Amino acid sequence: MFTLYSMQRSGNSYKARLALAQLGIPYRLVEIDILKGDSHTPEFLMKNPNGQVPLLEVAPGRYLAESNAILWYIAGGTPLVPDDRIDRAEALQWMFFEQHSLEPNLGAAYFWLTLIKGGRDLQSHAIEDWMEEGHRALGVMEKHLSVHDYFAADCYSIADIALYAYTHVAHLCGYDLAAFPAVRAWLARVTAAPRYVTMDFNPTAAIPAL
Amino acid sequence: MFTLYSMQRSGNSYKARLALAQLGIPYRLVEIDILKGDSHTPEFLMKNPNGQVPLLEVAPGRYLAESNAILWYIAGGTPLVPDDRIDRAEALQWMFFEQHSLEPNLGAAYFWLTLIKGGRDLQSHAIEDWMEEGHRALGVMEKHLSVHDYFAADCYSIADIALYAYTHVAHLCGYDLAAFPAVRAWLARVTAAPRYVTMDFNPTAAIPAL
Repeated sequence: MFTLYSMQRSGNSYKARLALAQLGIPYRLVEIDILKGDSHTPEFLMKNPNGQVPLLEVAPGRYLAESNAILWYIAGGTPLVPDDRIDRAEALQWMFFEQHSLEPNLGAAYFWLTLIKGGRDLQSHAIEDWMEEGHRALGVMEKHLSVHDYFAADCYSIADIALYAYTHVAHLCGYDLAAFPAVRAWLARVTAAPRYVTMDFNPTAAIPAL
Repeated sequence: MFTLYSMQRSGNSYKARLALAQLGIPYRLVEIDILKGDSHTPEFLMKNPNGQVPLLEVAPGRYLAESNAILWYIAGGTPLVPDDRIDRAEALQWMFFEQHSLEPNLGAAYFWLTLIKGGRDLQSHAIEDWMEEGHRALGVMEKHLSVHDYFAADCYSIADIALYAYTHVAHLCGYDLAAFPAVRAWLARVTAAPRYVTMDFNPTAAIPAL
């Protein structure tokens, strides 16, 4: 059985929990509160030298880091990964876009402006860039979603899970989604997917195996 | 035949050119000078709404963006992608690390401090973060490379190509690699790989098919 090291309030961790729930894969959960330093203990750094969650133990003593690599691994061979080779690469394209253009802005804003007391003052030099670049990334998503229901292969996939994690909390940290109607419609489609769970879903509750 | 839209001085574009050269895959090259606005013409934005290079035409009218998704696509089924499923996910893990933790710092520093006249003044608010976070990322790589020759599956792969692109120009934009001997040894290993080409390699010269 997988062991997932995850922080409940982390969007990156939520990706893994959402995919595991939707695939009906049982797992053991270890809560790592990065705000309390849990991800920088010597024991955790042995598992992930980058000191980040989520982290998935995929085989005894073998750990996989980076939320989107974890998504790729757990969803391999399931309907959450497109069959066609170009479609699969397109799913990856959007997942790299997420880690490069969306998460560093929306994720950083979410972390510092909603989870960290005094974060707005500590990061005052960066917020303008997060807002500008984040809205730009949302614009790229809006353009795609105005002619597609989902990001890759026109079906719900791990690319949608990756992009949903921070987009669905964007309104909590200063982003205005009013100008992005296609993004809002897509957010609603994701919440309507089978076995959808919210970010605060407690994964220690039993997940029925498929 | 693939068409690659690439900027010669872009590290992200170099990844695709290096992998195509090492795999002996012939392709047509279109130089896109982002500094001259080539990536924001209406014609280019039709191909990639994110306005970035590299961009690969993988089938007539079908375009793949994001350098690491391109690497994944062109190297699929070759020795540059590990066979084992966990090893493959580990390659992806390092490629996501590259786009999230390395490229936004080393890549941004390279772009603004070496390619853009007056970039240091324009980005003075961001440089300290780029340096701190970039050195932190190099530290994570150093830790891995002190016990491994390469990033995934202990063999040369697209993960190395992805991480090499901006690490090999880090010294040009303020990063000090003196404290990272394992990273320096790995850089030398990459340059010794078969069919290695430098960033200024002119890909319009004929590449012999394997």
